[in-house]
Amino acid sequence: MQFNASYRKGFASDNWSGVSPSVMEALAEVNKGHHPSYGEKDPLLDQAQEAFRKLFESDCQTFFVYNGTGANVLAVQQLLRSWEAVVAPHSAHLNEDEGGAPEKFTGGKILTIDSDDGKIKPDQVVPFLNSIGFQHHVQPRLITISQSTEMGTVYSIQEIKELAEFAHQNKMYLHVDGARIANAAVALGCSLAEMITQTGVDVLSFGGTKNGLMFGEAVVFFDKKLAAGFEYSRKQGMQLASKMRFIIVQFLAYLEQELWKKNAGNANQMAQLLGRKLAAIDGISLSRPVEANGVFAILPAEIIPKLQEAYFFHVWNESKCEVRLMCSFDTSLEDVDGLVAKAKNLMLNDQNKPSTP
Amino acid sequence: MQFNASYRKGFASDNWSGVSPSVMEALAEVNKGHHPSYGEKDPLLDQAQEAFRKLFESDCQTFFVYNGTGANVLAVQQLLRSWEAVVAPHSAHLNEDEGGAPEKFTGGKILTIDSDDGKIKPDQVVPFLNSIGFQHHVQPRLITISQSTEMGTVYSIQEIKELAEFAHQNKMYLHVDGARIANAAVALGCSLAEMITQTGVDVLSFGGTKNGLMFGEAVVFFDKKLAAGFEYSRKQGMQLASKMRFIIVQFLAYLEQELWKKNAGNANQMAQLLGRKLAAIDGISLSRPVEANGVFAILPAEIIPKLQEAYFFHVWNESKCEVRLMCSFDTSLEDVDGLVAKAKNLMLNDQNKPSTP
Amino acid sequence: MQFNASYRKGFASDNWSGVSPSVMEALAEVNKGHHPSYGEKDPLLDQAQEAFRKLFESDCQTFFVYNGTGANVLAVQQLLRSWEAVVAPHSAHLNEDEGGAPEKFTGGKILTIDSDDGKIKPDQVVPFLNSIGFQHHVQPRLITISQSTEMGTVYSIQEIKELAEFAHQNKMYLHVDGARIANAAVALGCSLAEMITQTGVDVLSFGGTKNGLMFGEAVVFFDKKLAAGFEYSRKQGMQLASKMRFIIVQFLAYLEQELWKKNAGNANQMAQLLGRKLAAIDGISLSRPVEANGVFAILPAEIIPKLQEAYFFHVWNESKCEVRLMCSFDTSLEDVDGLVAKAKNLMLNDQNKPSTP
Amino acid sequence: MQFNASYRKGFASDNWSGVSPSVMEALAEVNKGHHPSYGEKDPLLDQAQEAFRKLFESDCQTFFVYNGTGANVLAVQQLLRSWEAVVAPHSAHLNEDEGGAPEKFTGGKILTIDSDDGKIKPDQVVPFLNSIGFQHHVQPRLITISQSTEMGTVYSIQEIKELAEFAHQNKMYLHVDGARIANAAVALGCSLAEMITQTGVDVLSFGGTKNGLMFGEAVVFFDKKLAAGFEYSRKQGMQLASKMRFIIVQFLAYLEQELWKKNAGNANQMAQLLGRKLAAIDGISLSRPVEANGVFAILPAEIIPKLQEAYFFHVWNESKCEVRLMCSFDTSLEDVDGLVAKAKNLMLNDQNKPSTP
Repeated sequence: MQFNASYRKGFASDNWSGVSPSVMEALAEVNKGHHPSYGEKDPLLDQAQEAFRKLFESDCQTFFVYNGTGANVLAVQQLLRSWEAVVAPHSAHLNEDEGGAPEKFTGGKILTIDSDDGKIKPDQVVPFLNSIGFQHHVQPRLITISQSTEMGTVYSIQEIKELAEFAHQNKMYLHVDGARIANAAVALGCSLAEMITQTGVDVLSFGGTKNGLMFGEAVVFFDKKLAAGFEYSRKQGMQLASKMRFIIVQFLAYLEQELWKKNAGNANQMAQLLGRKLAAIDGISLSRPVEANGVFAILPAEIIPKLQEAYFFHVWNESKCEVRLMCSFDTSLEDVDGLVAKAKNLMLNDQNKPSTP
Repeated sequence: MQFNASYRKGFASDNWSGVSPSVMEALAEVNKGHHPSYGEKDPLLDQAQEAFRKLFESDCQTFFVYNGTGANVLAVQQLLRSWEAVVAPHSAHLNEDEGGAPEKFTGGKILTIDSDDGKIKPDQVVPFLNSIGFQHHVQPRLITISQSTEMGTVYSIQEIKELAEFAHQNKMYLHVDGARIANAAVALGCSLAEMITQTGVDVLSFGGTKNGLMFGEAVVFFDKKLAAGFEYSRKQGMQLASKMRFIIVQFLAYLEQELWKKNAGNANQMAQLLGRKLAAIDGISLSRPVEANGVFAILPAEIIPKLQEAYFFHVWNESKCEVRLMCSFDTSLEDVDGLVAKAKNLMLNDQNKPSTP
Repeated sequence: MQFNASYRKGFASDNWSGVSPSVMEALAEVNKGHHPSYGEKDPLLDQAQEAFRKLFESDCQTFFVYNGTGANVLAVQQLLRSWEAVVAPHSAHLNEDEGGAPEKFTGGKILTIDSDDGKIKPDQVVPFLNSIGFQHHVQPRLITISQSTEMGTVYSIQEIKELAEFAHQNKMYLHVDGARIANAAVALGCSLAEMITQTGVDVLSFGGTKNGLMFGEAVVFFDKKLAAGFEYSRKQGMQLASKMRFIIVQFLAYLEQELWKKNAGNANQMAQLLGRKLAAIDGISLSRPVEANGVFAILPAEIIPKLQEAYFFHVWNESKCEVRLMCSFDTSLEDVDGLVAKAKNLMLNDQNKPSTP
Repeated sequence: MQFNASYRKGFASDNWSGVSPSVMEALAEVNKGHHPSYGEKDPLLDQAQEAFRKLFESDCQTFFVYNGTGANVLAVQQLLRSWEAVVAPHSAHLNEDEGGAPEKFTGGKILTIDSDDGKIKPDQVVPFLNSIGFQHHVQPRLITISQSTEMGTVYSIQEIKELAEFAHQNKMYLHVDGARIANAAVALGCSLAEMITQTGVDVLSFGGTKNGLMFGEAVVFFDKKLAAGFEYSRKQGMQLASKMRFIIVQFLAYLEQELWKKNAGNANQMAQLLGRKLAAIDGISLSRPVEANGVFAILPAEIIPKLQEAYFFHVWNESKCEVRLMCSFDTSLEDVDGLVAKAKNLMLNDQNKPSTP
């Protein structure tokens, strides 16, 4: 078949990348014979449940869904009645980039907190507690954070622990949007059990698509009682895959020999390198620390479109000339060096250019 | 990797089967370099749009989603405000087997029609027209049919045309749930343009997962005006895939050299054969005509569990001892003969058994 | 002020009638000084809570809402998650006449049972139990009945008890739509405690508007735990009245000196009389027993519009020439006799008329 | 009947007040004979439609609902699909005080603008236009403002005109939450036609409950095409009153001889007086200009609870010791003078008190 497509790698997003070779192999391998649809009584599902229990050192319960939107929205709805609300940083994917899916599906409200680095602290949640018991206000019942955040920052284990404790003290739950959780774990050099189970997180959206899977996301409940009925809400949420084996097997491959860590490790390492090399160029500076796999930098406005032509990436904040460069599992030294060389070259030309009078 | 799975083929459902080899190859082939996420500005998407326009001989607009639930629910919601209703046969997947997703997502009601063969006629919709203008009732605005139906039957081109005309005369739309549309087209020996475009269908859920794809479904609008805003409702409906190329490429492979027709042709042919051979066994009869890829048969209650052990299938109606045997793209002559032989054998033993006094 | 209105009384519906004089007096009386809005810390609300506890001989918790739609929909949503379903007779107001409000607000499905007399029995609910645990189906969790029914029939105390027991045995709840509960209680000659509390009903929509109130309805929970959060869902459901005292005081007047019983008693008595007198006319027959305040009769098609001109009423089933005549708290002997006289007169003319050749 | 209630007037909210005498009389007067339920074919409804057309000098279409939550939420939903969003000041009642009803019922998102005086300007809406066409974001489609605002401020006619023009230039609509629109019109000294019709407002929630009605609110569409289907969404939104005459007649009384203007005039005048007199007290200052019927003042923390004992009012911003005093149609000179005298007295005692060392 002839495809209308031939893309060079860039730094647009970690979901512009493809599928890890071993995941692709697992997909081919599982494509034999028949499997029960929807994962029902498929031993492959038990194998995956066991793999997650081992990963999190917890008697957790895992459900597979199609994507991050589905994982986040269904997790949130599971813990709320429609008159209860989730508290999130304003920059949360859940608030900004899900096209209103949380409101549509939960029927409820997102209470937002402004945060420059994408992280929130318990004392920022405190004001919402005033609404508790006031019948005209939605009732805050859940806190959600992204690990790593949309701003490329990473919560420390202690920070997560404090949020979980605060939540539980106030009869709230803590959800983690882990679309890039592997990058965060690598950044912290900790296990997922240390970061999630031992801090007291209640439910996790465990992402893989941004780190080498084709599709599929997992919702992990650390208290099975909180998961009651989730299989029905998943179906009603249009997130139940009929040929479920093809999601399950990807996660088996992802956890096998810690592919998640290997992939995220490469992405993070390339981001560190890219950050250092860019920052070393005169006229370019980093706008945020590089903590996971994203690099945020300030570039002269003139060179941005020219650099995008060579390696596509997104402008994050146009008024500040801030760009976002995401590294992924398949970002190579050559990619980093290529972009850096191009940027240097453009900067030179830019500086040599006589300034407009 | 070691999988906890080794299944023999059966007749449980066409979604117990795997992925067509050429689809699997296309997935591997497209897994090179980076692609824009969400299909945005991906030439691959244009290629697929063009392939659908050719298939339907129509300037139609196609959107890719994850699954049939998503395709059906989003298509229905697109054409309705929440106080408007969709009219469906009671047996429709939309009504019976989507776990309440239509109600949840559209906020509206399904008005159902009892139908033994899974098909409905215009005069069965007439009574709902009485509600038009009565402010206490939901307003019927859309008719949905499944082609082929959940009962294995197939609407003739003329029947679809009559429903479309009736709908349009009454300011309603016609939607087709085409989870098994390839089987229907093969059964009728017609093109998809003849069956869908030329009959006046407004929107189609075009399925592939039950006929050899891994995941993914297409929603096709034959009047682009009806599609306005669908990209936003797809996102809000949690059905927007980030690595969209892996859905698109499956459909390219599916339409290339008419894989859809080849796959459905095999399934239908095996169903015909299976039907004939089963009906020829003393004590077994078909409960419905074999029109597409499903065979419905009445078996003695005693032999059902024993036959299921050899080749799994579902009991459709327990009180009638009616079972459903679905053939799929990978059902082979050996599978059919194997099941028939086993059934014969069980019937013989059953008849030789002294009857309970 | 000059009104564009001067209606004569008819038999269209019990909500065509006005407000009981003593309710009107209470409204005027409570219109003094200021009251806290929304009933918050208003001692009047405590007085009403106490009155309901006395009425039902139960430590019940009562919430006031605007109307029957609100009471029913909020009560149902309170007991369900969106993937759970309510089982109702097809003729239930909740299913037929709420314009899709239950689906919109609960996000869930109504599972319906065909019933000629508007009543259902436990064995009709049994088939839905098969869906329990099947992830593709909504999960039945609540049974709702109307007392008296839309067909004018009345459940016996024993019938309600059996439904409640069945529900509880199957981890379901029982809700009663009591839009006409006063008429039912008078018909059965029992107390509300006997009919509702002692049968095991979980939640009741206690209506008054059809029996002499201006507006307002009460939702009564017989297990306070089931009411948790209802104040928030009432607000979110747009059913929280700001000048709450004007709803509360109507119910105080309604329960004071058993106005509810007096009003319903008159309506029922008039219905009995009307039924007897109509049935005595040659050519007119009753199509259903008169059990509460509705009379269903079969009339010759020709006389229906002429009789409607004198006393308006609704045709219930056009194909059967079945009409519905509702009596209300203010229906008088003169009204009944007037309609009967007119009907007799029309029948005579009808019979004397030479038949069309 | 004995009521558990005897309240003195205060300044808590204009909905703590009762019903204007002439409204009460109209309610009693209309309580004769039977009226069609739901306003269907009730000439009284035509009379009210005509009264609104005259008031707004517009061929507008008016629908009556129960309350302000219903009016606002149904108006917003009417103009949006669920993936479209309403832009509102953060302080909007719709955003802060409807308990999540807009999200629940529209399924969509509220995009908020921070505003100290409760008013917004077109350039604050501009940033949201960037989301147009971006499939991951909700699509801004409606702007809503409150007139007068929750902060007691009033938009000028010119300001409303600019917002309407901006909205229409960007294919958006303008909705006005007119819970206190009478107070705003009196403040501006203009007609409702000048403020609403001639500025280009698309839909208005026309309130009355806060200005002397018992219950009921009107939704007014100035382009009838925008109202298509509203009768069904009102029913589905649980806002259709069965004894509709009792809402209609209140609005007839409200518009008759400009009761709305008389009532609002008194409330505004008392607020002006109260503001002036409070500001004249040493140690008390106004925190916002008095433009409609609300007075916002800064009081010493110590005297607030003591003053509340005499005349109840709400603390608006605890950290700033800012209180809100609302005047209503029945606020009298004695009430104002009484509160002012009490405040003065408390201030004196407060100043005489030896300060804590």
